[in-house]
Amino acid sequence: MLGIFDSGVGGLTVVKELLRRHPSSGFIYLGDTARTPYGNKSAETIRRYAVEDARFLVDKGATTILVACNSVSAVAMDELRKEFPTIKFFEVITPAVLSATGKKIGVIGTRATIGSGVYERRLKERDPNVEVISQACPLFVPLVEENWINKPETKRIVRTYLEPIRRQQVDALILGCTHYPLLTKVIRVSLQKRVKIIDSPSALMDTVEREAASELVDGTQKYYFTDPSAATDAIATKWLGTMIKGVRAELA
Amino acid sequence: MLGIFDSGVGGLTVVKELLRRHPSSGFIYLGDTARTPYGNKSAETIRRYAVEDARFLVDKGATTILVACNSVSAVAMDELRKEFPTIKFFEVITPAVLSATGKKIGVIGTRATIGSGVYERRLKERDPNVEVISQACPLFVPLVEENWINKPETKRIVRTYLEPIRRQQVDALILGCTHYPLLTKVIRVSLQKRVKIIDSPSALMDTVEREAASELVDGTQKYYFTDPSAATDAIATKWLGTMIKGVRAELA
Repeated sequence: MLGIFDSGVGGLTVVKELLRRHPSSGFIYLGDTARTPYGNKSAETIRRYAVEDARFLVDKGATTILVACNSVSAVAMDELRKEFPTIKFFEVITPAVLSATGKKIGVIGTRATIGSGVYERRLKERDPNVEVISQACPLFVPLVEENWINKPETKRIVRTYLEPIRRQQVDALILGCTHYPLLTKVIRVSLQKRVKIIDSPSALMDTVEREAASELVDGTQKYYFTDPSAATDAIATKWLGTMIKGVRAELA
Repeated sequence: MLGIFDSGVGGLTVVKELLRRHPSSGFIYLGDTARTPYGNKSAETIRRYAVEDARFLVDKGATTILVACNSVSAVAMDELRKEFPTIKFFEVITPAVLSATGKKIGVIGTRATIGSGVYERRLKERDPNVEVISQACPLFVPLVEENWINKPETKRIVRTYLEPIRRQQVDALILGCTHYPLLTKVIRVSLQKRVKIIDSPSALMDTVEREAASELVDGTQKYYFTDPSAATDAIATKWLGTMIKGVRAELA
């Protein structure tokens, strides 16, 4: 069975992409809303949380796990694979790196993701001559979670953060955080038209369809949160366009 | 011994006010940076975290505890007093309510604090005819933690959030979150000049000096964080104007 986890609601963009392609696919989602966000916490703390999150999904029967969180994908994959050797893990960084073509690539993400340097390292492994321009955008997650998607204040903050990337005239921009696809329209107008925007949920689902098609089978869809609330249900319902009622997850 | 806790770094504004008045006063500070922020989490989760935080301080020898977090003060005081009957607790709401004079009072805070309605209830207990205008400002905490104190984007967001309060021509504004005093200058210019701004660290310290003067004795000053990091040390050092090195706290 397919398990999907994230620090909070951001990973629901992965669920959204999964459901767009396979509306009846079964899965369990875990959002660690009691400890969200992860992106400004230390690598050590993120690793501990990631193992606890994955253990919850494994105990519920997950055999393939999508790590729908760039911060976890950036710092905790070795830990997860060591702790759960029989589970097949997919993370969000490799698929985005493989989709990003061009000589100059921009990457935006949380402080943890950008600070880890993982995108730059992976992009250079693929093409040692690529130029990478990285920018941490720590205010994007709270803006998305407040649903300030189309506010003038948000447009201005996006423009401020993206200015160094716009100046460098990149060929592609990787949205290195699962929250960011919700800001795509605003990001789009802050960059030159020809810039290819790569969002990780879509790149991830390409990979899953290729490498784990047998897991994409019809089944029940269940949403767990470590701090379920009316606010979380409301944001999930709005993003996914269908009524969501989260269930409390008690992590071991 | 004096213990002080908060969901993260915001409570350091209470430490700052304590040290301004009593530079050599001994205390232990706990910031739950591994689970910060609390303000957008459920009351049930905040209560559980508050008890764990207080237990850490009590185990370290605290006999008087300053709850330097409005969200905890709003929803968890009954829990704390029941769980630790021999400990003297001070919270940040009552002192601010007692300082706010006038017929029309504005209150700003996190979603948890404003949603609890605690300020409105307490202000009306004191004066049933008072008019209270409340506004949740959930983006202020991330803006402060990013140190975007003087940015034009921040000024614009502050103006947007405060507009309903400005229109109502309040007599006083309670900054119902320990992070907000760092935004005082920006808040000041978004309101009429005559508005009295009440910040909880200063109101809290007035109360502590009055009711627990015997706890204000010289001693060691120690900072614990559940997720200590260079970033946390940097923000603490900057705010307090003295080199801070946080120690890891393991909560039971």
